[in-house]
Amino acid sequence: MTPAPGRTLWAIAEGYIPPAGSDAGRALESHETVCILNAGDTDAEIAITIFFADREPKGPYRFTIPARRTRHLRFNDFVTPEPIPRGIDYASLIESSVPVVVQHTRLDSRQAELALLSTVAYPAA
Amino acid sequence: MTPAPGRTLWAIAEGYIPPAGSDAGRALESHETVCILNAGDTDAEIAITIFFADREPKGPYRFTIPARRTRHLRFNDFVTPEPIPRGIDYASLIESSVPVVVQHTRLDSRQAELALLSTVAYPAA
Amino acid sequence: MTPAPGRTLWAIAEGYIPPAGSDAGRALESHETVCILNAGDTDAEIAITIFFADREPKGPYRFTIPARRTRHLRFNDFVTPEPIPRGIDYASLIESSVPVVVQHTRLDSRQAELALLSTVAYPAA
Amino acid sequence: MTPAPGRTLWAIAEGYIPPAGSDAGRALESHETVCILNAGDTDAEIAITIFFADREPKGPYRFTIPARRTRHLRFNDFVTPEPIPRGIDYASLIESSVPVVVQHTRLDSRQAELALLSTVAYPAA
Repeated sequence: MTPAPGRTLWAIAEGYIPPAGSDAGRALESHETVCILNAGDTDAEIAITIFFADREPKGPYRFTIPARRTRHLRFNDFVTPEPIPRGIDYASLIESSVPVVVQHTRLDSRQAELALLSTVAYPAA
Repeated sequence: MTPAPGRTLWAIAEGYIPPAGSDAGRALESHETVCILNAGDTDAEIAITIFFADREPKGPYRFTIPARRTRHLRFNDFVTPEPIPRGIDYASLIESSVPVVVQHTRLDSRQAELALLSTVAYPAA
Repeated sequence: MTPAPGRTLWAIAEGYIPPAGSDAGRALESHETVCILNAGDTDAEIAITIFFADREPKGPYRFTIPARRTRHLRFNDFVTPEPIPRGIDYASLIESSVPVVVQHTRLDSRQAELALLSTVAYPAA
Repeated sequence: MTPAPGRTLWAIAEGYIPPAGSDAGRALESHETVCILNAGDTDAEIAITIFFADREPKGPYRFTIPARRTRHLRFNDFVTPEPIPRGIDYASLIESSVPVVVQHTRLDSRQAELALLSTVAYPAA
C-alpha cells in the first residue's frame, strides 16, 4: 500500500488571476491552479481560505480529493461562498484532513504567448 | 567521496503533457520532465507511480539512475506499463532505493514561443 | 482561529529588476515581487535587507503586513532608505516579527511577450 | 550583526544550457544561473560539482562569495577545469564552507521571446 506523503497545512503567498486572457479556449485561458495530490488511502477533505491585501479573508472553499487521486483546482472556478475577484492580489491557506502534497501553477495568456510559473507550496504543518 | 544528498520519496502534484506542440524538433517539443540526481556511489532503482483525477494510479514505471549520474526523464516517453495520456491532469510519486534529488520542469511549446516552469519536488521521506 | 503558519526569517538569493519593460501599464511592467502572507492574528513588522555583488547591503526596508492580510511588495517600488538599482544582481533577506510565508515572483516584459518565474523563498529560521 | 542563514550543501537536479540564443546581448543571452547569497560575516568558499547522464562528474569549479555579498554565477561562464557542454542535461552539487542560500534560474532565448524558470535549490545538509 502506498504511503501517504505530505502535510495537512500548506500556504501559497502568491495569487493573482489576470483580468483577461486568450480566446484560445479553456486549456489556454489565464488561470491560477492549486494542484493537490492525495496519494493515500483515505479521502482528503480540503478547506481553502483566501487572504487579501485590504479585506477580511474569505472561505472556506471546500473540496474532496478522493483516495489515490489528484485534483488541479482552478481558483478561477471557485464559486462558493463567492468568486475570487480578478486583477487583485491574494494568498491562500490549504488545510487537509489527511496528508497531501500541494503545488501552485499559473498560466498567463494576457499576451499572445503564454507564460507559466509553478512552485511547491509552503508546507506549514 | 561525495556524500549522497537527497531523499528516497518525492512527490510532484502538478503534471500535464500538452496535447500538441512546436514542430521545431525534440529539444523544443512540449515536454514534462522529472530530473533526478544520484550523486552517490550506488545505483538508484527508481519506481514512479502516476495519479489521475478520475482513475486508479498507473505504474510503477521503473528506471535506473547509475551512481554519480543524472537523468532527465520525460513523462512523454514513458511506455511501460503504458503511455501517459496527453491533455489530462496527473501527479507523480517517485520512490528511490537510495537518496536522490528530484526537480520538475515543463516546456510548453503549444504557442509560437515556449514557456518554462520548474520547481524542486516535495521531499516526502 | 486560523493558526499562523510560516517562519520569521526568509532568504531570496535571486533578484534582478530589468532596466526596461513593456509600455502596457503597471500590471504588465517588468517587476520583481516579494509576496508575504500573514495568516495570523498579529500584525507583522517586516525588515528587508538587500545584498549586492560588489557593495555593502542596503536597508532595512520596513513594511507592516496587518493580521490576516497579504501584501505583494514590488522591489521596484522600494524608496526608503533608497531605490534599488535597475539592471544589477541582488538578493534579499526578509525578517518578520511574527511567522509569515514568503514567495518570490518576477514578471519580465523586456520583450513583446512576458515571462514569469516564481518560487517559495528559503525558510531560514 | 545579521545571522548567516542557509546550508552548506545544495543540489540542483535540473541543468541545461541551450545551444543557441538571442542576439540581443549578454542580458538576454540564454543562460543558466546559480544565485548564491552569503548573508554572513565570513567569506564563503564554494565548490561546485557537475553531474552528467553518461560520463563521470566534472569539477570542482571554485568560487569565493565574500561576506555580505551575493553572486549570480552563470554556468555558461564556467571555464576551469573545463567549460560545460551546451545542449546536454546536467545537474549540480554546491558545497560551501559556511551557510549560504542557493537559487537556480534559467533564461531561455532560443525563440524570439524569452522564457524564465527559477526555484530554490534543494538544501541537502
